[in-house]
Amino acid sequence: MTNKIYYPLNDNTGSVQLIQSVGDDTGIVNSARVSFGKRIDSIEDKDKKLIKYLLEHEHGTPFEHNSLSFLIKAPLFVVQQHLRHRISSFNQISARYVEIKEEFYIPQNFRKQSTNNRQASIEGNDLENEKANLIYTESLKVAYSKYQELLSLGVAREQARGLLPHCTYSEYYWTCNLRSLLHFIKLRDHANAQWEIQQYAKAMKEIAKEIFPETFKIIDNN
Amino acid sequence: MTNKIYYPLNDNTGSVQLIQSVGDDTGIVNSARVSFGKRIDSIEDKDKKLIKYLLEHEHGTPFEHNSLSFLIKAPLFVVQQHLRHRISSFNQISARYVEIKEEFYIPQNFRKQSTNNRQASIEGNDLENEKANLIYTESLKVAYSKYQELLSLGVAREQARGLLPHCTYSEYYWTCNLRSLLHFIKLRDHANAQWEIQQYAKAMKEIAKEIFPETFKIIDNN
Amino acid sequence: MTNKIYYPLNDNTGSVQLIQSVGDDTGIVNSARVSFGKRIDSIEDKDKKLIKYLLEHEHGTPFEHNSLSFLIKAPLFVVQQHLRHRISSFNQISARYVEIKEEFYIPQNFRKQSTNNRQASIEGNDLENEKANLIYTESLKVAYSKYQELLSLGVAREQARGLLPHCTYSEYYWTCNLRSLLHFIKLRDHANAQWEIQQYAKAMKEIAKEIFPETFKIIDNN
Amino acid sequence: MTNKIYYPLNDNTGSVQLIQSVGDDTGIVNSARVSFGKRIDSIEDKDKKLIKYLLEHEHGTPFEHNSLSFLIKAPLFVVQQHLRHRISSFNQISARYVEIKEEFYIPQNFRKQSTNNRQASIEGNDLENEKANLIYTESLKVAYSKYQELLSLGVAREQARGLLPHCTYSEYYWTCNLRSLLHFIKLRDHANAQWEIQQYAKAMKEIAKEIFPETFKIIDNN
Repeated sequence: MTNKIYYPLNDNTGSVQLIQSVGDDTGIVNSARVSFGKRIDSIEDKDKKLIKYLLEHEHGTPFEHNSLSFLIKAPLFVVQQHLRHRISSFNQISARYVEIKEEFYIPQNFRKQSTNNRQASIEGNDLENEKANLIYTESLKVAYSKYQELLSLGVAREQARGLLPHCTYSEYYWTCNLRSLLHFIKLRDHANAQWEIQQYAKAMKEIAKEIFPETFKIIDNN
Repeated sequence: MTNKIYYPLNDNTGSVQLIQSVGDDTGIVNSARVSFGKRIDSIEDKDKKLIKYLLEHEHGTPFEHNSLSFLIKAPLFVVQQHLRHRISSFNQISARYVEIKEEFYIPQNFRKQSTNNRQASIEGNDLENEKANLIYTESLKVAYSKYQELLSLGVAREQARGLLPHCTYSEYYWTCNLRSLLHFIKLRDHANAQWEIQQYAKAMKEIAKEIFPETFKIIDNN
Repeated sequence: MTNKIYYPLNDNTGSVQLIQSVGDDTGIVNSARVSFGKRIDSIEDKDKKLIKYLLEHEHGTPFEHNSLSFLIKAPLFVVQQHLRHRISSFNQISARYVEIKEEFYIPQNFRKQSTNNRQASIEGNDLENEKANLIYTESLKVAYSKYQELLSLGVAREQARGLLPHCTYSEYYWTCNLRSLLHFIKLRDHANAQWEIQQYAKAMKEIAKEIFPETFKIIDNN
Repeated sequence: MTNKIYYPLNDNTGSVQLIQSVGDDTGIVNSARVSFGKRIDSIEDKDKKLIKYLLEHEHGTPFEHNSLSFLIKAPLFVVQQHLRHRISSFNQISARYVEIKEEFYIPQNFRKQSTNNRQASIEGNDLENEKANLIYTESLKVAYSKYQELLSLGVAREQARGLLPHCTYSEYYWTCNLRSLLHFIKLRDHANAQWEIQQYAKAMKEIAKEIFPETFKIIDNN
């Protein structure tokens, strides 16, 4: 198991770390073959064929007898996208009980709005990146100081947080099985997903690859 | 079916409306009694006893053969709490594709931070409410104008929205069955929940009461 | 809504019937477009394109804001396969509380065991069908009379039912949304599924087609 | 982790065994306290209070960041009850692909039918247990020999299994998190549940107790 911390957004704040996991490629094969009463300890060629068959025919249940728990730090708008994945478990830092730190996600590269609405943004080298950065960070500064002013006045954290911008960093545990993770990666490590959540999906894929190397070899070769 | 629009937060913005529903009290009884092959059209005393028994013994499945769809407008921090309820369906307006309007939830009464951390806030008549309101609305003004500046510069909506405060109004469809709704109401129409989401839970309860009057009579009399 | 009773197994016993439903093709489009704040009443060409896009890109949530409830009578081995579909609601007649009637599924055509294990059975015109039928029905007769003997002796139904064969008919309510139903149909109206459950999947598809005609046109043309 | 095999039904056939698990009592506390950014390695008094609070207020999510996988051998009627628990993962031996062995659950004590329908059975010392056993085993003998005859004739296993009695042993992997397991135990290790599945629930509770000792101490003291 890898304890390496990944920083998907190339700042030193956003992070993904595996906390614990159970299960590996052999568990997929064993649960698929409960039919045949055998149990294997290592993956052979016919087992790889079985995994390939299961993936292609959407036989998902053998990929569920395992568990991965992550500790993730991400901007609120990524959290909200992440929360849409319901076959998983989620516990987040609560801005009702805790004073939130001044940690915001600030894009290194601002992207241009696409005129083709489906593709939400495009890399824009003709965008005034520094100017955008200035506007962005100025707004963050005001928001955080007003948040602080409200707290000083005695306002409840759960109300004061109404001012926190959607790029505020939050932290959460996320636990899922491999079936659910593969679905997450399929949808979020995808060109149609927002660039920021793509980076989180890529980091989780790197981590999961070390635990289920044969499964990901098959996925990446298809 | 009621099409009445509820405004749970006493502004004219936050809203809850039933879009469609199917099923009623008799459906609960019929699905519980599939065992006995009968089907009823109206609720009698022994049916009320059955519903009571099912509720008390946590036999939840007979409450699942129905469906309620709501159109809801709520601040992002309420949306995030709502999203935690996984046994339900959810489609939200996307700030990636749409320019968000200048609609924010502004508390009429700012509550004081409780020193008992589990009770997050308390009604505070000694709080300088006007002062809090001034700080709050000033911050919103800056955030929205900076959001607009970024859009004018050509920045993608999905990045510019990073500045939108957590009290920004969003809109979504939410569909669930009565079992899931009862669980939502139990947790969110509860003194430990944040006042704002309590109001949404109360509005949904009012709506559901008209569709399942006998079930809610039993719940409210317990 | 259709109340027609389907008899998928060509005996007069196994059956599928729609009990209630809510939602239609326009609901899919409206929930997908919550982003754009419009609501349509009829399906136009651009709406069909949207449904096609959602299906192809596995954007499943807009297909969840609806509900279909079926009353189904099926052999226990079909029930067991059906129960594997977890995103749905299920209430079944209980052999603990009710004396089970002498109703069994008897195949009209016995199929041959395939030597290719993945294809479980093949049509076999060289199989002695009458002989198989004789063996089969003789066993059912013994099982049911022994079940009756146990009940006469005062044995609890929940234990006596241990003798009931896996082809005994059972009855249940099944409620799901269109997303879950489409997944069920994909896996079970498929050559790899057992012939018997295929027939149930086909009947449910016929019923659902009347409620969501545009969605199924798109699926069937792909 | 315990690898001990449990035989819940007091024959040498029905069995429950833990295959793998991840997570312990500290994980519950850590995920509940993500709010406070600390992580503990051992359980102290205030942690026990937190677990108690979470259990009493139905804050279920902190109990989800763990996983238990069981290999279970149980009669088909127990399997069917087990399958009703949807928040879990399930892979069962397939009677479509495998010839089923002559292994049946035969009650040591036949129970009397209760006249109170909700309590399905009662211990009956005035029941002719030997006579019941004779009827029961005779029926099993016929069913299995007819099943064998059909297979000899070349009938597909998936059809021949229609004759197998509902007390036939089957084998499956079952994976769930502690929240789901606690719910299973609550409903199935309960006087209203059938005696046979109660024994399985008790065995799983014994196993889970060794992994989450503090949580079960709190549950058992309430």
